[in-house]
Amino acid sequence: MKTVAVKNIERAEKSIVEGLGTLGVATVHEAQGRIGLLKPYIRPIYRHSRISGSAVTVLVHPGDNWMIHVAVELCLPGDILVVASSAETDSGFFGDLLAESCKAHGILGLIIDAGVRDTHQLEELGFPVWSKGVSSQGTVKAALGAVNVPVVCAGQYVGPGDIVVADDDGVVIVERSAAAKTLDAGIAREKRETAKRRRLADGELGLDIDSMRSRLKDSGLVYLENQEEYSRFDG
Amino acid sequence: MKTVAVKNIERAEKSIVEGLGTLGVATVHEAQGRIGLLKPYIRPIYRHSRISGSAVTVLVHPGDNWMIHVAVELCLPGDILVVASSAETDSGFFGDLLAESCKAHGILGLIIDAGVRDTHQLEELGFPVWSKGVSSQGTVKAALGAVNVPVVCAGQYVGPGDIVVADDDGVVIVERSAAAKTLDAGIAREKRETAKRRRLADGELGLDIDSMRSRLKDSGLVYLENQEEYSRFDG
Amino acid sequence: MKTVAVKNIERAEKSIVEGLGTLGVATVHEAQGRIGLLKPYIRPIYRHSRISGSAVTVLVHPGDNWMIHVAVELCLPGDILVVASSAETDSGFFGDLLAESCKAHGILGLIIDAGVRDTHQLEELGFPVWSKGVSSQGTVKAALGAVNVPVVCAGQYVGPGDIVVADDDGVVIVERSAAAKTLDAGIAREKRETAKRRRLADGELGLDIDSMRSRLKDSGLVYLENQEEYSRFDG
Amino acid sequence: MKTVAVKNIERAEKSIVEGLGTLGVATVHEAQGRIGLLKPYIRPIYRHSRISGSAVTVLVHPGDNWMIHVAVELCLPGDILVVASSAETDSGFFGDLLAESCKAHGILGLIIDAGVRDTHQLEELGFPVWSKGVSSQGTVKAALGAVNVPVVCAGQYVGPGDIVVADDDGVVIVERSAAAKTLDAGIAREKRETAKRRRLADGELGLDIDSMRSRLKDSGLVYLENQEEYSRFDG
Amino acid sequence: MKTVAVKNIERAEKSIVEGLGTLGVATVHEAQGRIGLLKPYIRPIYRHSRISGSAVTVLVHPGDNWMIHVAVELCLPGDILVVASSAETDSGFFGDLLAESCKAHGILGLIIDAGVRDTHQLEELGFPVWSKGVSSQGTVKAALGAVNVPVVCAGQYVGPGDIVVADDDGVVIVERSAAAKTLDAGIAREKRETAKRRRLADGELGLDIDSMRSRLKDSGLVYLENQEEYSRFDG
Amino acid sequence: MKTVAVKNIERAEKSIVEGLGTLGVATVHEAQGRIGLLKPYIRPIYRHSRISGSAVTVLVHPGDNWMIHVAVELCLPGDILVVASSAETDSGFFGDLLAESCKAHGILGLIIDAGVRDTHQLEELGFPVWSKGVSSQGTVKAALGAVNVPVVCAGQYVGPGDIVVADDDGVVIVERSAAAKTLDAGIAREKRETAKRRRLADGELGLDIDSMRSRLKDSGLVYLENQEEYSRFDG
Repeated sequence: MKTVAVKNIERAEKSIVEGLGTLGVATVHEAQGRIGLLKPYIRPIYRHSRISGSAVTVLVHPGDNWMIHVAVELCLPGDILVVASSAETDSGFFGDLLAESCKAHGILGLIIDAGVRDTHQLEELGFPVWSKGVSSQGTVKAALGAVNVPVVCAGQYVGPGDIVVADDDGVVIVERSAAAKTLDAGIAREKRETAKRRRLADGELGLDIDSMRSRLKDSGLVYLENQEEYSRFDG
Repeated sequence: MKTVAVKNIERAEKSIVEGLGTLGVATVHEAQGRIGLLKPYIRPIYRHSRISGSAVTVLVHPGDNWMIHVAVELCLPGDILVVASSAETDSGFFGDLLAESCKAHGILGLIIDAGVRDTHQLEELGFPVWSKGVSSQGTVKAALGAVNVPVVCAGQYVGPGDIVVADDDGVVIVERSAAAKTLDAGIAREKRETAKRRRLADGELGLDIDSMRSRLKDSGLVYLENQEEYSRFDG
Repeated sequence: MKTVAVKNIERAEKSIVEGLGTLGVATVHEAQGRIGLLKPYIRPIYRHSRISGSAVTVLVHPGDNWMIHVAVELCLPGDILVVASSAETDSGFFGDLLAESCKAHGILGLIIDAGVRDTHQLEELGFPVWSKGVSSQGTVKAALGAVNVPVVCAGQYVGPGDIVVADDDGVVIVERSAAAKTLDAGIAREKRETAKRRRLADGELGLDIDSMRSRLKDSGLVYLENQEEYSRFDG
Repeated sequence: MKTVAVKNIERAEKSIVEGLGTLGVATVHEAQGRIGLLKPYIRPIYRHSRISGSAVTVLVHPGDNWMIHVAVELCLPGDILVVASSAETDSGFFGDLLAESCKAHGILGLIIDAGVRDTHQLEELGFPVWSKGVSSQGTVKAALGAVNVPVVCAGQYVGPGDIVVADDDGVVIVERSAAAKTLDAGIAREKRETAKRRRLADGELGLDIDSMRSRLKDSGLVYLENQEEYSRFDG
Repeated sequence: MKTVAVKNIERAEKSIVEGLGTLGVATVHEAQGRIGLLKPYIRPIYRHSRISGSAVTVLVHPGDNWMIHVAVELCLPGDILVVASSAETDSGFFGDLLAESCKAHGILGLIIDAGVRDTHQLEELGFPVWSKGVSSQGTVKAALGAVNVPVVCAGQYVGPGDIVVADDDGVVIVERSAAAKTLDAGIAREKRETAKRRRLADGELGLDIDSMRSRLKDSGLVYLENQEEYSRFDG
Repeated sequence: MKTVAVKNIERAEKSIVEGLGTLGVATVHEAQGRIGLLKPYIRPIYRHSRISGSAVTVLVHPGDNWMIHVAVELCLPGDILVVASSAETDSGFFGDLLAESCKAHGILGLIIDAGVRDTHQLEELGFPVWSKGVSSQGTVKAALGAVNVPVVCAGQYVGPGDIVVADDDGVVIVERSAAAKTLDAGIAREKRETAKRRRLADGELGLDIDSMRSRLKDSGLVYLENQEEYSRFDG
């Protein structure tokens, strides 16, 4: 492993990053072709936050949070820390002190494939975290990792400067080079969905809006009148 | 698998269904002889909802939510969708569009042995969901399953028209034929519990209310005065 | 197993127990040398409670909650029930009736390496519970266990009268004999942290406050200017 | 729950049951339309067994194996015990004594949604078991369940007399009424696969044998010459 | 935590330790009143070993195996290493070099609530290990723990010198002070079981050997002739 | 996602690939600085295989194995298939037919972050597989993925042509550009370990071979004579 900290990274335009945040995780995931999701075991420690920002990536070792301190200094306002570990770990890498420091530097939140602690205080501070779990088990500052190198976090490749979108549904990563295109696709999708949402709220059926009836019939779906017909039916 | 959709099912009387809902999951489970629970990994996506209704059952395949669209049309107000999968799956089968459609048709909620997404919006809509997890991973509409056939959902057999009760404690199923008897047993139990609850709140002990002392003694429980007696005790 | 109930246990001074509660789980865990945590699968059934009290320990068998009834009588106001099982179990050992009884006797909360039910009612009652899960599955009263004997709960040894601190971060146990020393160490730590918290909130970096820079350099951390330097870097 | 033991059940013809066993789990599962699998957490305690037989179903309560003793008497040679629990349980319900008894009565094996023990002895006896896990934790004989009633075992509905096929791939259930049809479909499938297996072993490609090339092209698969082309490719 | 290594511990008599090993885990567990089992997630890395010995306990920190080296020196032939961690950890703490060293000092095996590696070599060496998992992830030698202090390993309290019995069914601990009594109880149990095993192998039923029939009847078990009776039965 | 198949990839020299295989997973992992491991949930379906080869990477969708067929054609003898999924999936993607085809083309084995089936036949064929699990649940051939693009498999980034080493300890990936350097480091390590292994087998202690005694003392380890000293010790 290269034990380095890269000081300057390229970031996507603020308007694009914020636009992706407005769309939310599920829409962004769809808009870029159903890729980029972190594994669903990464959950918010409290509900109802939604953030989007540029990834400052951190690679740590199990039980050692030293590199997070290094990373804070390299963040700009609007960044999001994305912490991956070189091996499985459940310790509590992050608590209220680090959160205070992050807030002071304009960092929007933390994504971490490990545990965190001081969760009540993090909520009171309004510093949202998506983690693998909660643990009071502390960490040490002994082994070097890296900052702003490509990492794999919860099964997803993340490059420094990639866009992170996180909400109650989980976390999705958009490659920086695909950000503008994804935003356009997402806005278009959102528009279509809004129109469809209204029709569905009015009681129209998805079967009709999306013209599924003939395809269902062609595929062989048989409608039966009742349970009795079903018991006699020999599919 | 018979790829069919049964249009009309028999449902229990509204008053019985609602009565069971008033009792809640734990009481209903006890009242029918401690059967009918879905496995405890099925959890509400947000807390403090309680619903009861008639099951419209849906059998899907991993990663394919086509049959849910078929099912919505066959629901009556007061129904609850119960979605089982032919094999383990974690994808997000259900989101805000389907929830809008369900609400428009009077469907009370969703029980699903798979993932869902748009969880914040589902909460804002007030459409309660009990699921195996949260995932933004979308699904396709390619493979036929079935609607209103018997299914096994999270380890529990569910027939179309069976009564579903769901709250913060999980989900319980009552066979339609046992609904009236279960309601009576539940009301009786609730009455006994209310009386007992008052006595307990007044400081009486379960040991006395339920006359456990002699049975404890007969079983061989020995009371010791303190830790010192314990270390000398040779059980 | 000795099937006994020890009636009187020694408890730590009230001021010490309460002092530890004020510090919270993460600080107490640090203050006593990073020991005493229950495994992180023990989670609160609702958020934002924090309790501290003296452990009344209960050893039960899978699916049998008889001993909890025995234990309630032996509790004093300010106690916390700590329930361990002789083998893995997921049933719902505790519900609203027992909670009413506990509240009537001044018991502050429950820690249990098993399931509980009536979770909404427990929250309404304001009786906090840390458990392995939620399950409506009821228990029987058939097999003797023990009260106020040493137990292992969620991987942690707990003696009767040991101090329990529980909050959103989990649960930590402090041996009674170490309580005073731990409180002192915790208060000292809290003081240092408060000072540091203020400096971090003002934008100072942990790197500077804790003088990490030279140690990072000595360990071999290399700062690179940008991604391009990184791709040429041959660590 | 009806606490009954049904003495006589209908079984499928021996030749059909054995024929299904010859096909194995994966083929039988395909032959009946991809239904009938127990959840994959049910694993053999030792490898390389394959059995098929008629299900004698047993419904037990957590930590209580009484009904297994009742079931042994009702088995005929060629039967397989299928044990479901009314709630999640990990105890060791079955060991070498019960296995001796089963062998003496011609029972072919055990499928159980719980734990077992004496696993080395079971292997030496040659009595194959598919279970949720291994645990030495013993059980009691206190609560009635049922024998030869429909059960849900590891997520799968099993009726008494249904055919069970189990091998290293897991366990599949065939409804008795579908057994003959499934055997025919399975034999036909096996025949097709044998022919295909030979061609594949000779180096022919699935792409050609199953004529996938045009469908891949129509779906939009693009072949690129090398990594360089890939980096310039803008899908 | 006291960072100490206790050099001399008391051990049970060799004949008792070996006698317990002959009985095996399930019998020993029963003989001492169904206590002492490690959680069932501790599994042997290869099957068909059975060992018994005196516990030399080791408390490590996540990702740090330093104390195991300290422990080896303090072992006598016939000892078994029991390694607990101060917090959850999955790294590979132990491999073929340590195993060679253990074998050279007559250590019989390893029980560890963490991962191990070089598993094929460990099997070839004939050094049995019961662990939480397998992982090649290495550890460091940086943080002090303790040797021969009481630990909690996989949910079970273990004191130095306690007797460890491990086989395919898992691991059980017998307190040194209870060893002789447990051996006697185990031998008696084994004798009874051997007699019963022979009768069961001859086809007698547990129902008759253990006189269960009247108790089943008293408890309310109803025998029905066939499925038809069952459907008419109103329990 | 780019739905492409890259036909030609660069591979490391055969002697290097085979050399890494001789070292095994644990040694290779150490030799390249403790990176490159797949998560430990990836396990061999049968024990005692060890393979090394060039990765042909495959990206599939949940429940869809179409791309594996595309990949087989693009493999050369000595390659290993590495299959990642765009989202969590447990289905059985691979069975004996595909294994026959792989063998016919000289493919050495399969690494897959999903399930497989026909596991007994795979063992008889001698085609080793490392997978997330076993499942008979079949897959479809409907959705395009990609072949020979970078993937994340079980938490590890894998590029086409990277070297895969797999044995009983799991799976490690070596970047093609680092292969020669890693082999050298691994051989050197192996040499050191062989020397050390001999000394350990002769009874020397790691404490002495690695000169740990003074560092242990400096860190504060205290040796106590016996349990009595321990109880009086006030660390």
